Amino acid sequence: MSTPESSPLTHFDADGQAHMVDVGAKAETRRVAVATGRIHMLPATFDMVKSGSAKKGDVLGIARIAAIQASKRTSELIPLCHPIPLTRVAVEFELDEAAHAIRCTVTAETVGRTGVEMEALTAVNVGLLTIYDMCKAVDRGMRMDGIQLMEKLGGKSGHWKA
Amino acid sequence: MSTPESSPLTHFDADGQAHMVDVGAKAETRRVAVATGRIHMLPATFDMVKSGSAKKGDVLGIARIAAIQASKRTSELIPLCHPIPLTRVAVEFELDEAAHAIRCTVTAETVGRTGVEMEALTAVNVGLLTIYDMCKAVDRGMRMDGIQLMEKLGGKSGHWKA
Amino acid sequence: MSTPESSPLTHFDADGQAHMVDVGAKAETRRVAVATGRIHMLPATFDMVKSGSAKKGDVLGIARIAAIQASKRTSELIPLCHPIPLTRVAVEFELDEAAHAIRCTVTAETVGRTGVEMEALTAVNVGLLTIYDMCKAVDRGMRMDGIQLMEKLGGKSGHWKA
Amino acid sequence: MSTPESSPLTHFDADGQAHMVDVGAKAETRRVAVATGRIHMLPATFDMVKSGSAKKGDVLGIARIAAIQASKRTSELIPLCHPIPLTRVAVEFELDEAAHAIRCTVTAETVGRTGVEMEALTAVNVGLLTIYDMCKAVDRGMRMDGIQLMEKLGGKSGHWKA
Amino acid sequence: MSTPESSPLTHFDADGQAHMVDVGAKAETRRVAVATGRIHMLPATFDMVKSGSAKKGDVLGIARIAAIQASKRTSELIPLCHPIPLTRVAVEFELDEAAHAIRCTVTAETVGRTGVEMEALTAVNVGLLTIYDMCKAVDRGMRMDGIQLMEKLGGKSGHWKA
Amino acid sequence: MSTPESSPLTHFDADGQAHMVDVGAKAETRRVAVATGRIHMLPATFDMVKSGSAKKGDVLGIARIAAIQASKRTSELIPLCHPIPLTRVAVEFELDEAAHAIRCTVTAETVGRTGVEMEALTAVNVGLLTIYDMCKAVDRGMRMDGIQLMEKLGGKSGHWKA
Repeated sequence: MSTPESSPLTHFDADGQAHMVDVGAKAETRRVAVATGRIHMLPATFDMVKSGSAKKGDVLGIARIAAIQASKRTSELIPLCHPIPLTRVAVEFELDEAAHAIRCTVTAETVGRTGVEMEALTAVNVGLLTIYDMCKAVDRGMRMDGIQLMEKLGGKSGHWKA
Repeated sequence: MSTPESSPLTHFDADGQAHMVDVGAKAETRRVAVATGRIHMLPATFDMVKSGSAKKGDVLGIARIAAIQASKRTSELIPLCHPIPLTRVAVEFELDEAAHAIRCTVTAETVGRTGVEMEALTAVNVGLLTIYDMCKAVDRGMRMDGIQLMEKLGGKSGHWKA
Repeated sequence: MSTPESSPLTHFDADGQAHMVDVGAKAETRRVAVATGRIHMLPATFDMVKSGSAKKGDVLGIARIAAIQASKRTSELIPLCHPIPLTRVAVEFELDEAAHAIRCTVTAETVGRTGVEMEALTAVNVGLLTIYDMCKAVDRGMRMDGIQLMEKLGGKSGHWKA
Repeated sequence: MSTPESSPLTHFDADGQAHMVDVGAKAETRRVAVATGRIHMLPATFDMVKSGSAKKGDVLGIARIAAIQASKRTSELIPLCHPIPLTRVAVEFELDEAAHAIRCTVTAETVGRTGVEMEALTAVNVGLLTIYDMCKAVDRGMRMDGIQLMEKLGGKSGHWKA
Repeated sequence: MSTPESSPLTHFDADGQAHMVDVGAKAETRRVAVATGRIHMLPATFDMVKSGSAKKGDVLGIARIAAIQASKRTSELIPLCHPIPLTRVAVEFELDEAAHAIRCTVTAETVGRTGVEMEALTAVNVGLLTIYDMCKAVDRGMRMDGIQLMEKLGGKSGHWKA
Repeated sequence: MSTPESSPLTHFDADGQAHMVDVGAKAETRRVAVATGRIHMLPATFDMVKSGSAKKGDVLGIARIAAIQASKRTSELIPLCHPIPLTRVAVEFELDEAAHAIRCTVTAETVGRTGVEMEALTAVNVGLLTIYDMCKAVDRGMRMDGIQLMEKLGGKSGHWKA
């Protein structure tokens, strides 16, 4: 189970050294990625977030802005990511009453030479972290789960769905 | 189920508006936070990461650096976080052979007026995201789970353990 | 009207060269600054912002977050500003119906060696710019006015009021 | 005067939630924006800035650099702005002797999918803030006024002039 | 020896004022730059870096990541640089046993309107600085030398070689 | 020639893994670092920089600002650096007519728990890089040399001089 001669992990060159992989010859095409994740909390915390969304103490409105802003910083945070000019970012929150969990789903798009999976995932992570931050004074035990890519479109590898 | 007069969510003022809460009167004390999370992957992906750590294609070495660097950017990412002069950040990875998962655990410390929970959690998230990025060419379905605070020390609220 | 031997503009040294002035010998004391400014718009734009604040399309909620986040980036934007650990940032918006203008007032605080005037002013500017951005699709002619420091407390120069 | 079904504020979706609006289908065309603003100061402060520009204590030279650099950070500061590859930024300062005010005018250009109004306005704001910072030791009461877009070219909405 | 009417230094306009020069009319073409530099150290320090690269205490692996990440921040650091979407960054280290020096060579590429010389040079500088940082506890006298452009390809000025 | 049991390279822990070393128990004391470096250029380039400094096309004024701003970003660029609240940064340029080289010397200070060597060195590097950028249209072969620490004061290791 050793690393093969030429690593299938494209972020490494033939000598096993990290590099920002050459995408210069790739076409600029429309690329979309959808990622998701959720945060579990106490019932009382869940109720606070829920009521806040409707009137004041708008936890989700703030988390949405944080998620969008984070997507634009992805290439600063993830060492081998290419800088990408995002053309669209949309963030949805769903309240799961039964599980007192909040799901965050992000759709990111670009017209570029490489995909936007990391941008969508980074936005989900920071959106959930912001909910944690806003509520941690009453609930330190919140837990983030199920953070994953749901779907991607565009590029040589084409359509992928979880 | 309405928001109480004075919200227990301290990031909101009495009118329900977001603010960066006043910590000026708090003492500068030593504060520690430990956060953790894991990423699940295919057995073949797990083996690649494992073999790489020992010799070349060092996925975890790169994820560790990304996690440390991200902890320093926390207050830029999380809207209501105070800027904090971190005095220590340590990142550990554990390989869970049975589950072909990698656990990332971060300890963050400061001598400051507010806690470092968000710094530890942000580092965990970016560490896991970097593993995802490094391996996504061979395994798009990796999943991040169980991201949570494990322990915090210091400050008025004292010791907390998950 | 020539520059005096030793410039009263403290950001220049005796040779007229810019430097980040030495504050190492100053005491760490509580410092507060309050800055304000307003943005004028068409009556129809004003009504949209006003109705949005109450229910959805929350322009001011987003501008508040942008203002707080910008205050933390002040030393990156203003070349000779010292990095300062802000201990509090609060942003208030007032709707001036008669003038169909929105006033943004920011209070910034630190316990540090230098004042937080620039942090408060930067937050006001970015708060107003965000309102402009959110509404520019319907009103490109909005105008920002009256951006100034209102008050500062703390430090050797003591209390100052506009 | 309630928000219409589909908000004319394009930064909100049909549910009134903020998003980074989809510009992926827009053509990459040349886009120009010109923004302006001024800062009023005491006559003695004005004279210092004026004499400094000519020889040493070059306040305006530093403010020009700050303005250019800030234009490149616009999408980090303004939450729903798209990242844009600027192709030109020029900053002009005019000294208004009668009003002892300094006017800052910025022209920003890109070849891209969305306009550069925010880049031009952000540069004006940070240019004026830097003048404030450089002179605040002698004049805390300086006031920024008349910050607005003067002209834009390119894009579907075409030419606009204040 | 005076500055000519129209400065050959393109970062200044006809009045000698700095600007981000207009590249909007330039074609988007493939551009490559290679830069290099080295850091000299004590024999004992050199041996530590050398042994670390092979097994643990991986100084060069960390310096490589720092160099790649810095290349993406070039336009934030160098005031008049245009933001550029890098399509490739590769970092090589060579151990010069005789001189107990480490050479860092960076290749940067884009498909864009302006060259990537500054991106390659910035990466070299930060790569070397990171080696310094990692080893300074045992060797404060390390010296960086010979940092220069080796080659550039693409753009109107065509091929250039040191 | 193997790495010792406990690495003298403090940025690695006992297992050879990178960490941000714990400085929480260190005293906050005044710390100073002086770093230097130079850039060599063609005689004609040197003359342009020299004449520009006096009147217009102020290359060195812009490089000074870039150096100061970069010093504040050091902990973002150098992976294991602690964030440090700089209390002073001064940048001097000397023209070496005989060698047609420009020397950049930076003094950085803090009152903190760790030294400011990296801040001084980063400022020198970015100052020299900015000179390169401003002059590269006429002289691509410029070379940076002799970048090193000159002196440090404060901290447990005390005074050090090159």
